[in-house]
Amino acid sequence: MLIIGERINGMYKDVGKAIRERDKATIQNLAKKQVSCGADMLDVNVGPAAKDAGQAMKWLVETIQEVVDVGLTLDSTKPAVIEEGLKIAKKKAMINSTTADKEKLDILVPMAKKYKAKIIGLTLGKSGVPRDRAQRSEYAAAILTACVESGLNMEDLYIDPVVLPVNVAQPQAIEALEALREFHLLYNPPPKTVVGLSNISQGTNKRSLINRIFLIMAQAQGLNAAIVDPMDSELMDAMITAELLLNKNIYCDSYIDAYKKKHTV
Amino acid sequence: MLIIGERINGMYKDVGKAIRERDKATIQNLAKKQVSCGADMLDVNVGPAAKDAGQAMKWLVETIQEVVDVGLTLDSTKPAVIEEGLKIAKKKAMINSTTADKEKLDILVPMAKKYKAKIIGLTLGKSGVPRDRAQRSEYAAAILTACVESGLNMEDLYIDPVVLPVNVAQPQAIEALEALREFHLLYNPPPKTVVGLSNISQGTNKRSLINRIFLIMAQAQGLNAAIVDPMDSELMDAMITAELLLNKNIYCDSYIDAYKKKHTV
Repeated sequence: MLIIGERINGMYKDVGKAIRERDKATIQNLAKKQVSCGADMLDVNVGPAAKDAGQAMKWLVETIQEVVDVGLTLDSTKPAVIEEGLKIAKKKAMINSTTADKEKLDILVPMAKKYKAKIIGLTLGKSGVPRDRAQRSEYAAAILTACVESGLNMEDLYIDPVVLPVNVAQPQAIEALEALREFHLLYNPPPKTVVGLSNISQGTNKRSLINRIFLIMAQAQGLNAAIVDPMDSELMDAMITAELLLNKNIYCDSYIDAYKKKHTV
Repeated sequence: MLIIGERINGMYKDVGKAIRERDKATIQNLAKKQVSCGADMLDVNVGPAAKDAGQAMKWLVETIQEVVDVGLTLDSTKPAVIEEGLKIAKKKAMINSTTADKEKLDILVPMAKKYKAKIIGLTLGKSGVPRDRAQRSEYAAAILTACVESGLNMEDLYIDPVVLPVNVAQPQAIEALEALREFHLLYNPPPKTVVGLSNISQGTNKRSLINRIFLIMAQAQGLNAAIVDPMDSELMDAMITAELLLNKNIYCDSYIDAYKKKHTV
């Protein structure tokens, strides 16, 4: 499971403030903490309000790369902001994200190819959030086709079924879960899958519990990557145990510690 | 999800002792506790060593029925012991269990029909534990055929994929999980599914964690029933949250309390 740390996002108050004040220590601390808790990559999002978004992205990437040696997931609705990060990324980066919209695909898929980056394809179309698992697969097929046609390595594509808050769109949770399983049947080799986890629990009273239960159910459907808070230790223990039961780690009495050690070197 | 409480089993020291001494209070206390924690049925097993197994079963059923009003899952490798319980069960009971062996099926399926009981079909054959998901489905089909031929109501059949300890048979966990999904495709209406959960964590250091992660993954594959320790509150909270995400309970901020209230009336 590829774990992508979610915390460096301007949406969080501490990060938003640190970006405005160009406070390196706060960002670097979050970067180091997430990696030491098991993040394989770090998501980097300047937040909705940043005016100098491109400059902020550049600063964030430089700041993070000074202290950790992991790939970065460059997260913005604006392709130009993502490209500011791609230009200076030292390790293989990830674009977060394109949708199934032709306009987005036409810009971002070639960008992924140019920078040899991974790319997340959100199963969103012009009409907004997908209705059900079938519409998710339809959008996934459109994204996949664009990637195949442009010669992108299928290893680099991660399809996201769009996770919605369970308290406002409850029937959508199982549609997203079942879509994950269906995505793997769309092509050979199959595309990988990813979820932005925390959205499932937005506005609920049991965020950590709901997050980890949804993650485990997604793993049971073959999930390959997740954008999560790796500092939630109950989440990480649950994820590691699910990997064990899926036969992806070898059992030993201290399998949780063994996994953590292997992933934080 | 049908929750079957596992604790009244002579394999547990306290229960074994209580059976030998005909100590009602210990048994009745465990019965009430499990039901108050959310058990919909109670498993009743006199244990491996009981000499007067038929009499012990009769005593257990009478003792339990004095204090709780739930159906009982009569658990024995000996059909005659199961029948002692069936004869006096006040509510719809469950036979735990037949295998795919013809000799067992020929006795236990007609017994289920005679007493209008549910029945668990373990996907075990003469050659022992199933190799993989395909062999599980093969055994499941044999059990299902016997039930259909004898006119048993498909609503009353629960197929069990045989859960083995992850520390000795790690690759079997995902075979059992995927088999659950396949069982639902075997017939229309589909048979129900059940697991004896605690076996997955036998001999490990993280029993409660491994139990609940396996349960949630099984729920994601459509599991209908589980034999568990309902007094494990983390297990129950996880199970309830998984049901929520599968759209089987309606979300409210206190969805866990709401579920518990509804199930312990």
